Amino acid sequence: MPDSIPPDSIGIVATKTLHFSEPLELECGKTLSQYDIAYETYGEPNAAGSNAILICHALSGDQHAAGYHSMQDRKPGWWESSIGPGKPIDTNHFYVICINNLGGCKGSSGPNTKIPGTDKYWGPDFPIVTVRDWVNSQHRLMQALHISHWCAVIGGSLGGMQVLQWSIDYPDLIKYALVIAAASKLSAQNIAFNEVARQSIMSDPDFHNGHYLENNSVPRRGLMLARMLGHITYLSDDSMREKFGRELREGKLSFGFDVDFQVESYLRYQGTSFVDRFDANTYLLMTKALDYFDPASEHKHDLTATLSRATAKFLVISFTSDWRFAPERSQEIVRALLDARKQVSYVEITAQHGHDAFLIPIPHYMNIFHSYMKSIREAIQ
Amino acid sequence: MPDSIPPDSIGIVATKTLHFSEPLELECGKTLSQYDIAYETYGEPNAAGSNAILICHALSGDQHAAGYHSMQDRKPGWWESSIGPGKPIDTNHFYVICINNLGGCKGSSGPNTKIPGTDKYWGPDFPIVTVRDWVNSQHRLMQALHISHWCAVIGGSLGGMQVLQWSIDYPDLIKYALVIAAASKLSAQNIAFNEVARQSIMSDPDFHNGHYLENNSVPRRGLMLARMLGHITYLSDDSMREKFGRELREGKLSFGFDVDFQVESYLRYQGTSFVDRFDANTYLLMTKALDYFDPASEHKHDLTATLSRATAKFLVISFTSDWRFAPERSQEIVRALLDARKQVSYVEITAQHGHDAFLIPIPHYMNIFHSYMKSIREAIQ
Repeated sequence: MPDSIPPDSIGIVATKTLHFSEPLELECGKTLSQYDIAYETYGEPNAAGSNAILICHALSGDQHAAGYHSMQDRKPGWWESSIGPGKPIDTNHFYVICINNLGGCKGSSGPNTKIPGTDKYWGPDFPIVTVRDWVNSQHRLMQALHISHWCAVIGGSLGGMQVLQWSIDYPDLIKYALVIAAASKLSAQNIAFNEVARQSIMSDPDFHNGHYLENNSVPRRGLMLARMLGHITYLSDDSMREKFGRELREGKLSFGFDVDFQVESYLRYQGTSFVDRFDANTYLLMTKALDYFDPASEHKHDLTATLSRATAKFLVISFTSDWRFAPERSQEIVRALLDARKQVSYVEITAQHGHDAFLIPIPHYMNIFHSYMKSIREAIQ
Repeated sequence: MPDSIPPDSIGIVATKTLHFSEPLELECGKTLSQYDIAYETYGEPNAAGSNAILICHALSGDQHAAGYHSMQDRKPGWWESSIGPGKPIDTNHFYVICINNLGGCKGSSGPNTKIPGTDKYWGPDFPIVTVRDWVNSQHRLMQALHISHWCAVIGGSLGGMQVLQWSIDYPDLIKYALVIAAASKLSAQNIAFNEVARQSIMSDPDFHNGHYLENNSVPRRGLMLARMLGHITYLSDDSMREKFGRELREGKLSFGFDVDFQVESYLRYQGTSFVDRFDANTYLLMTKALDYFDPASEHKHDLTATLSRATAKFLVISFTSDWRFAPERSQEIVRALLDARKQVSYVEITAQHGHDAFLIPIPHYMNIFHSYMKSIREAIQ
């Protein structure tokens, strides 16, 4: 392993892509006649085929959950803190798969790919996809990779919603469900933030009704605003106070509209750097998938009845300072699971990092995550 | 009183304007050589000159705090709930003055007025004004109206910050200070939200670097986004849940990017209607005044030392579900006042309306407000 890659990293990894030609019916009523799914795998399947784990990504995530794409890579995958040799999702023991969700922008079919058989970008015409659609497409990949069942499906935030949907829609194919920093549906406030983000993007004149790629433009300002806003909701008031306080960038007030406070500088940086790595139409799709997720709506809004078909064992984790999906939202899930007489463990981690905590190697969180995964290892042996 | 105006309203009122030709030095180092201040008055001064009350407005407020401008007016002033005959700020007993802050857009000198002696709009060249600058200009108006002292200065949110500044800068001129839903300084999260709002406005191509009036344009999209975002922070998660829940506007999902949920429709309406009544440059100035407010910064960040010069009696009010300026922020002020051995009463009102609660006639709030104001009336007799 080269010097610059930490020894507890899975190391150099590559994205693979599978093409699917069997049509996929979507909840919106449209059908994808064919599509690609980009994914990465870490670790190896065992002989019994009992150690496969699916990682589901969140709003701005992708299939690159761990390791590095090249020696030049400055950053590892988004969940490097938890996936790798000796880490909670231990690649010495588990065969880990992470998928770029349909509608994504990192290799799976989505707005920034071409409509099959044409030279036109999907752009705004890519159908609205739901969490259930994702789960169905993940199931297709699972079959293609000859994986009989997931020993665990794991995800944080929007990823946790996919875990819930897996446990409901394919109860026989999932042994353990790890639902981290998630909710069983968005609140009006959550939807409101998403709507402001969408309006930021869609009102940018460079958006061209979503056809910006054909117009050789990018709705930079809108996507930047959406990301800045998102970032505020990922951090807690406390963590922002700790990180930035009221620190001035230049040591004094500017009495102008340039950056005065460090937090402004941070947000602008987060906003502009996001534009270079993410697609605006994908961002819109992901926020809609979040808004629409509400599995209990099919069961007269009874979450207990909804989860009653699940057979997985659950670990639900929340973080005290997460105000995007507060601990109460996890507790709703836990209560419903208990009422439905499911096996569930619940941990509320004291952390001041806000929603972002699920990506951070907080010792208490890592310890619990580690020992739970170890118990899964022992159970599948 | 005509039928359509409620009997407990002050009724038809009119904005007055005073021109000031004595230069006003501002904290930014610039000087306004002359300026106008628009204001309204409700009630009458008593013979002793002891019943004058200053109302300070918040971010998007103005001098029109109570009553109606005409019989055609569909809405009364912004604090109609608390100002009028028989209301907490009882116009049968008090002489109430409310001022459009400098930099505002409702008649006082600000970005949408002309630079004196020219035919040019101030636009982005209007100097950055601070809470202290406002207090100084309010003091000028006070002198012009021959008001010897305020029996009370009252304000919510940014208005409450002006009350604090009055109590510090002109301790001899203010008997009672009512600081409602305020804070002694913004948190990093507060600043972050303001920064996203500013970036929304400034990145709108119709902003023209602030010179939109000369360009016959309005940064509609940016100002709309800023207001939508603001609204989320004015409401609580609970009040949004109660008000909108996950109600669908058309009863079913659209699987598109039109409005799905009621909360989206509400926010879009709030955003677009704001554009017709507010100026974008003013919005920018107001957010900077908020960000910059930090009176303790002049006293080694010791709020107790800062407030030690105050002589007013204080009433501090917070609202349980206010997450913009949470009760803890009011408690910081109360602790500092107590440490400085000031007379202070503190009430935390149980309310689910979020920051907006200070504008809402919540019975417990109104009762306390009413009896405190009655005690002031008795004290000044």
